Amino acid sequence: MEQKSSQSLGKLSGLRREHKGLINLMPLQTGGMLGEAAKEALVEFGDGYSVCDFCQGVLCDISNPPIRNFVQRVLPLFLGCEVATITHGAREAKFMVMHSLAKPGDAILVDGNRHYTTFVAAERVGLNIIEVPHSGHPEFRIDVNEYAALIKQHAPKLILLTYPDGSYGNLPDARRLGEIAQEHNVPYILNGAYAVGRMPINMEEMGADFIVGSGHKSMAAAGPVGLLGMKKKWEQIVLRKSGRHRNKDIELLGCTVRGVPLMTLMASFPYVKERVNHWDEQVPKAQWFSAELEKLGFVQLGNKPHRHDLLHFDAPALYEISKQVRERGYFLYKELKERGIWGPQPGLARSFKLSTFAADRQQLGFVIDSFKAILKKYN
Amino acid sequence: MEQKSSQSLGKLSGLRREHKGLINLMPLQTGGMLGEAAKEALVEFGDGYSVCDFCQGVLCDISNPPIRNFVQRVLPLFLGCEVATITHGAREAKFMVMHSLAKPGDAILVDGNRHYTTFVAAERVGLNIIEVPHSGHPEFRIDVNEYAALIKQHAPKLILLTYPDGSYGNLPDARRLGEIAQEHNVPYILNGAYAVGRMPINMEEMGADFIVGSGHKSMAAAGPVGLLGMKKKWEQIVLRKSGRHRNKDIELLGCTVRGVPLMTLMASFPYVKERVNHWDEQVPKAQWFSAELEKLGFVQLGNKPHRHDLLHFDAPALYEISKQVRERGYFLYKELKERGIWGPQPGLARSFKLSTFAADRQQLGFVIDSFKAILKKYN
Repeated sequence: MEQKSSQSLGKLSGLRREHKGLINLMPLQTGGMLGEAAKEALVEFGDGYSVCDFCQGVLCDISNPPIRNFVQRVLPLFLGCEVATITHGAREAKFMVMHSLAKPGDAILVDGNRHYTTFVAAERVGLNIIEVPHSGHPEFRIDVNEYAALIKQHAPKLILLTYPDGSYGNLPDARRLGEIAQEHNVPYILNGAYAVGRMPINMEEMGADFIVGSGHKSMAAAGPVGLLGMKKKWEQIVLRKSGRHRNKDIELLGCTVRGVPLMTLMASFPYVKERVNHWDEQVPKAQWFSAELEKLGFVQLGNKPHRHDLLHFDAPALYEISKQVRERGYFLYKELKERGIWGPQPGLARSFKLSTFAADRQQLGFVIDSFKAILKKYN
Repeated sequence: MEQKSSQSLGKLSGLRREHKGLINLMPLQTGGMLGEAAKEALVEFGDGYSVCDFCQGVLCDISNPPIRNFVQRVLPLFLGCEVATITHGAREAKFMVMHSLAKPGDAILVDGNRHYTTFVAAERVGLNIIEVPHSGHPEFRIDVNEYAALIKQHAPKLILLTYPDGSYGNLPDARRLGEIAQEHNVPYILNGAYAVGRMPINMEEMGADFIVGSGHKSMAAAGPVGLLGMKKKWEQIVLRKSGRHRNKDIELLGCTVRGVPLMTLMASFPYVKERVNHWDEQVPKAQWFSAELEKLGFVQLGNKPHRHDLLHFDAPALYEISKQVRERGYFLYKELKERGIWGPQPGLARSFKLSTFAADRQQLGFVIDSFKAILKKYN
């Protein structure tokens, strides 16, 4: 027993990732890979509480390292908001807005493609969750005009739109929903976990009240870290201070990311800001890749022509193979890994997601050829 | 404006810590410095969402890296609890327990030395916070027997004890409070942010229902990451699942530390488990250091003889100097830094905290001599 326990402890050190160095198409990961500056920050600020050397009591007010400038000046400009703060991630940002603006039993209206964390955050607050349905297979389109009638019917305290969603990479008409939100005077959360840091997005232009971003998902940061931007009018509510500890934010429990993920987010920021300018190269790359896979008989789900790097495919030919091989759905993971490619979730072959964000056209060409070779091998 | 903005962006990369390599006496940091194994994990799992390669939907169930084994087997044994989970930190663990067990308007009874985050977490839930007073300057002692009468008076839904507190490093009678909690049948949270990972502590032995720990504060982990241990009877309440997404924990919003701080916590664990066995060397070291500083006219606050590495001193002689020099209280920070020592919060000279946890006796001897030299220089 003692020996078993120390063997199992030994396994906690020296752990290695199997997928390092592969062509990465995994949608959760392609926007969160660190650049050189972030890798340096990782080592420099790795020790616990090392961002707090000169803290006067509030993380977002620290001037060395320059967190205050980043939060108060850099982020609002980047997000198109008036006030910004740091959170543990997109889900924690959604929860704190819901927890501040709504009470148990209140309604919230969300898109049918919402991330599961939107649902769970609302459940944690005790909200009545109303979903605006999508159009179903294969497009899963959200028509934001459908929000209007549901707002009248349910009088929600908040509405939320996922832009794009994490299942199909669909980009619904967020700007139109901003008009609807303003017409009905209902606060509007834009969940941009797959947008902020990848593509141009501006809260003000969308007419939203809140914008949520994810450092580890789309801003080349170590996980977990996120952002919340808002209109000034919500600052006193969402960023309300403790009655006893006057400089401490209640919803942030004082400070959130008191550590290295925030430093990697900051170190990566100049690079992230620049890469957003090249979004017009990302979209045609994704469309080309999608078209090439469709030539192999795969079916791209979601909006077409697609306007985001997150792609979801039905692959009936791969599914047929998976039914006949010993590894079942894992054969695809294994075949791709042998070719230096990491993307579909291990075990999935019938339907899976890929992201073209981090790979260049040459690498994607190799991925396309690899799918061809896999199909050929088994047929 | 454009130029100004790009200058300010340039400052986000290449940031360096000023206090790296100094003798570290800063109480927030001495238990959170990474060992070699954690430094390796930091680099290996730095990319966003890199712990999620083989995720089936729940962070704490991931078997590669072996998070599931760590959470389900290693941590309960270490904490003396039946069920454990990963949190963003100690404060987030306290909030989730309070949010699960109590409703707005309910009372919570906490010690007068509680961390500010205990107060703010309770405020976030909307609780009525009752404090068991400490004995005041200089000992700030908590007599846990005083909980009993206040439990009868206020019928709290929860009681909490900080063990030790972060201001004086006092260790109140946590075990006696366990008996009181059981007599009155009120759930008992032990906040061990400065205990778990530094000294032996066992939830079951203390008679507590919950134990809270901090990775970045006391377990040689990058920040932020924490632990929550509990009795099995609370699992269904605190770790309740989503009604729609059946494997997702509501209070964790699905997953908490989806990134590298968790990997550093795991990588450091064998080292941390071993260092706890040497706590009997830490206590006399702290007592010796305290006695030496008292010979210089400093006054150690809190329990005596002291039983923890966190020490708080009143230093009237340094305060007198600070009133006469241009740098005011910052002179102490500056003088110590010039000697390769980092400890008291910059600006403080009259009263400050130090931790002897990470320094050896030779280094502490040098610190004592440095204080002597500083006193001599200005007198």
